[in-house]
Amino acid sequence: MNRKMIFYILSWVLKIEAILMILPIIAAIIYKEHEIMYFLISAGSCALCGFLISPRRPKDVRLYTREGFVSVALSWVLLSFFGCLPFYISGQIPHLIDALFETVSGFTTTGASILSDVESLSRCMLLWRSFTHWIGGMGILVFVLAILPTSGAENIHIMRAESPGPSVGKLVPKVRSTAKILYCIYLVLTLVEFILLACGGMPVFDAICISFGTAGTGGFAVTNAGLGGYTVYQQSIATIFMILFGVNFNVYFLFYARKPKDALKSEEARTYLLIILAATLLITWNVRGYFATLYESFHHSAFQVASIITTTGFATTDFDKWPSFSKAILVLLMFIGACAGSTGGGIKVSRIGILFKTAVKEMASMIHPNSVKIIKMEGKPVEHNVLRSINTYLVTFLVLFVASVLIVAFDRFDLETTFTAVAATFNNIGPGLSAVGPTRNFSEFTILSKCVLIFDMLAGRLELFPMILLFSPRTWRKQL
Amino acid sequence: MNRKMIFYILSWVLKIEAILMILPIIAAIIYKEHEIMYFLISAGSCALCGFLISPRRPKDVRLYTREGFVSVALSWVLLSFFGCLPFYISGQIPHLIDALFETVSGFTTTGASILSDVESLSRCMLLWRSFTHWIGGMGILVFVLAILPTSGAENIHIMRAESPGPSVGKLVPKVRSTAKILYCIYLVLTLVEFILLACGGMPVFDAICISFGTAGTGGFAVTNAGLGGYTVYQQSIATIFMILFGVNFNVYFLFYARKPKDALKSEEARTYLLIILAATLLITWNVRGYFATLYESFHHSAFQVASIITTTGFATTDFDKWPSFSKAILVLLMFIGACAGSTGGGIKVSRIGILFKTAVKEMASMIHPNSVKIIKMEGKPVEHNVLRSINTYLVTFLVLFVASVLIVAFDRFDLETTFTAVAATFNNIGPGLSAVGPTRNFSEFTILSKCVLIFDMLAGRLELFPMILLFSPRTWRKQL
Repeated sequence: MNRKMIFYILSWVLKIEAILMILPIIAAIIYKEHEIMYFLISAGSCALCGFLISPRRPKDVRLYTREGFVSVALSWVLLSFFGCLPFYISGQIPHLIDALFETVSGFTTTGASILSDVESLSRCMLLWRSFTHWIGGMGILVFVLAILPTSGAENIHIMRAESPGPSVGKLVPKVRSTAKILYCIYLVLTLVEFILLACGGMPVFDAICISFGTAGTGGFAVTNAGLGGYTVYQQSIATIFMILFGVNFNVYFLFYARKPKDALKSEEARTYLLIILAATLLITWNVRGYFATLYESFHHSAFQVASIITTTGFATTDFDKWPSFSKAILVLLMFIGACAGSTGGGIKVSRIGILFKTAVKEMASMIHPNSVKIIKMEGKPVEHNVLRSINTYLVTFLVLFVASVLIVAFDRFDLETTFTAVAATFNNIGPGLSAVGPTRNFSEFTILSKCVLIFDMLAGRLELFPMILLFSPRTWRKQL
Repeated sequence: MNRKMIFYILSWVLKIEAILMILPIIAAIIYKEHEIMYFLISAGSCALCGFLISPRRPKDVRLYTREGFVSVALSWVLLSFFGCLPFYISGQIPHLIDALFETVSGFTTTGASILSDVESLSRCMLLWRSFTHWIGGMGILVFVLAILPTSGAENIHIMRAESPGPSVGKLVPKVRSTAKILYCIYLVLTLVEFILLACGGMPVFDAICISFGTAGTGGFAVTNAGLGGYTVYQQSIATIFMILFGVNFNVYFLFYARKPKDALKSEEARTYLLIILAATLLITWNVRGYFATLYESFHHSAFQVASIITTTGFATTDFDKWPSFSKAILVLLMFIGACAGSTGGGIKVSRIGILFKTAVKEMASMIHPNSVKIIKMEGKPVEHNVLRSINTYLVTFLVLFVASVLIVAFDRFDLETTFTAVAATFNNIGPGLSAVGPTRNFSEFTILSKCVLIFDMLAGRLELFPMILLFSPRTWRKQL
């Protein structure tokens, strides 16, 4: 294992985090908040550690799969630790585990909070909290790749480990250019949302934070009412952009590359939009009695469906009070998640699609054992090792999910709370149902449960394997 | 498709069902109950239909996979329909869907009931109700195979479709002999349990019914208190025999064939016993405050664990009141289920084991892409098509499960009730939690939900594919 290279990457991650903390520092200057010193301390210690652990570039810059997984997992752990320092040392979140929970929830774009009163936080803290969503959404290592002065084609291993989805393609031959294009699309979409929100009368500070939260499909809001206090227009903009950020970024790249026909053919994006449409219509009809007009029912249903399937987790209304059928659909959407290659979490539409196609194919071959059928996705045959890794993903997902539920169940909440708390963190959504519903928060769990949920958020964001490999002794063996 | 042969098999199933109804008729004679006439009418119509649909043996007795699946699925539907007639025409269960639910629950060895007062049923009805467990436990078609005057080696298709587990082996070269041996083991074990219960002071009628319920891992009791009213000795006997009937019958065959060493080496049985031990100890410790002594806590935990993992569903105590951790373990056991090739339901220990091993192997090959590792179960390499069909099973299981939950959720019960009602019927367990907990019943569901749960019980018992293929248009195409 090339440890020097791992340290080198980690040092870059820390240096970049220090630079990113300039944004809340600017906010503190604008709003004249004394919390600026906590950010200066945090940014300083971050940069110092960054320089200390790897003063210069190693000679051997080779990276293999194992190093890719390990550096991604370690980066996220370090990132979260240093990211929680401002909350903790300022005393705005007094307990370290709570501060860590909030920060991991931010970077993993979960949006689950331990705060019962968001508005008591100072502005610069709120901005940093929402900014973590934006940083985590596209992935910090993709950012490192975009700027890191290494040539390596091996960087694909890092990208593969950090990007969501069953198979990562390079948009253009060079990994570094791909990373740059992705970040550009991300930035432009965020800007457009910000402008539309600000023009629609939302305060600029709120518009920035909400845009960050939507772009990363995170879900942290800046008021206690979530997005419930904004106008219908502002909520609708959020709905549309949540859906847009859940689409595979390849689709936008195809538009950018002037191939709109190919973009519109995307099987995953079409399935994803179809699921959103179907779920919205079913829920609209199911909750029609809860709202004055059918349009209002549609508006809130669409918002909630978009919020849950993209794993954003914003709320405009307390959907925990909706009937069981609607709640069951929302729980199902929690697991489906957004498209691969988007900022959303969950199992991903393409994985679900491939699993479903495999099952149908196998069943057909039960009746007609001699028929040969190839599974296709996006018109291309799915490779055998992709199929196998998806199955592995599903099984690992279920095992980790069950283990987490069993540990969190010790807290003696009802099963619905326990089950949806794990589902909401594991799939990086945010709110669950019952005691962790949209109007409640995660503060009542014990430290053990919070640690498990922190692990779940990281494992969910990094698609399981980096976090598991981090804890596997085999990973650390010198040779095998 | 060889339709004549399917009709021939169905006619035998009906004739045998008519013969099996002699047992409740004898009970009615002994207890001098007037319900004897309803059984005579049912048995008569059953036999008549049996003779009408296929008067004589067809010339072409060939059977392929498709015919195997279809005849098994149709047999179970017909069996359930005629089996519910005594309950319905006697008026002891006034609604047809309720009577069908109770009978399907019996034959599929689920043990879920729509009766709030079991004791109001007459003795012959109670005996028939418990007898359906015993018939369904080993499978009616295995019985048909054991006595049917056909030579066909093709009968393996029927056995494969009806027997639970990922891969069905013939114990001896001939399918017919295998079926006979299985039924002998089944009969002997049931008899031993009956003798032990009767010697322990249980009334003979109760001992017969409870033995039937344990053998089929069904769960219908004859008193409203379930098994709560019996002595600790009697409950312990039930615990031991529930565990025994959840073991792969191959193990007993190996003992019978004087290969005790091979029998004790069974990987699945050992994993199964280990899971029971671990779950029992965890729950014993978790519920120690609910009972006077630690032994009592152990006794009830062991009983409940055995009852749930073997998917029997007997209850001695209201485990719905236990803490969330224990309930979460029980829900998990619902899905794991017993060994393949036993009378129990669920996903099966061997499937879980193979899935788990595949996931571990795939993860190892992520760090070391060039290492080759073969997945072994019971010391033999697992064939590739078995692996694929297990994955298909898991995906199909999840799809059907989710669809059922969504439909049943319309009934506006809480999510815990909805979720565990589907889990308990799909895995053929019986009681769930909350409104379908061990002291409650399924009578409050709407007709639509009951129909879905009836389908789930049949699909669960027949391991999904026969029931799905029955509804697939491809199955009915003449040629492909």
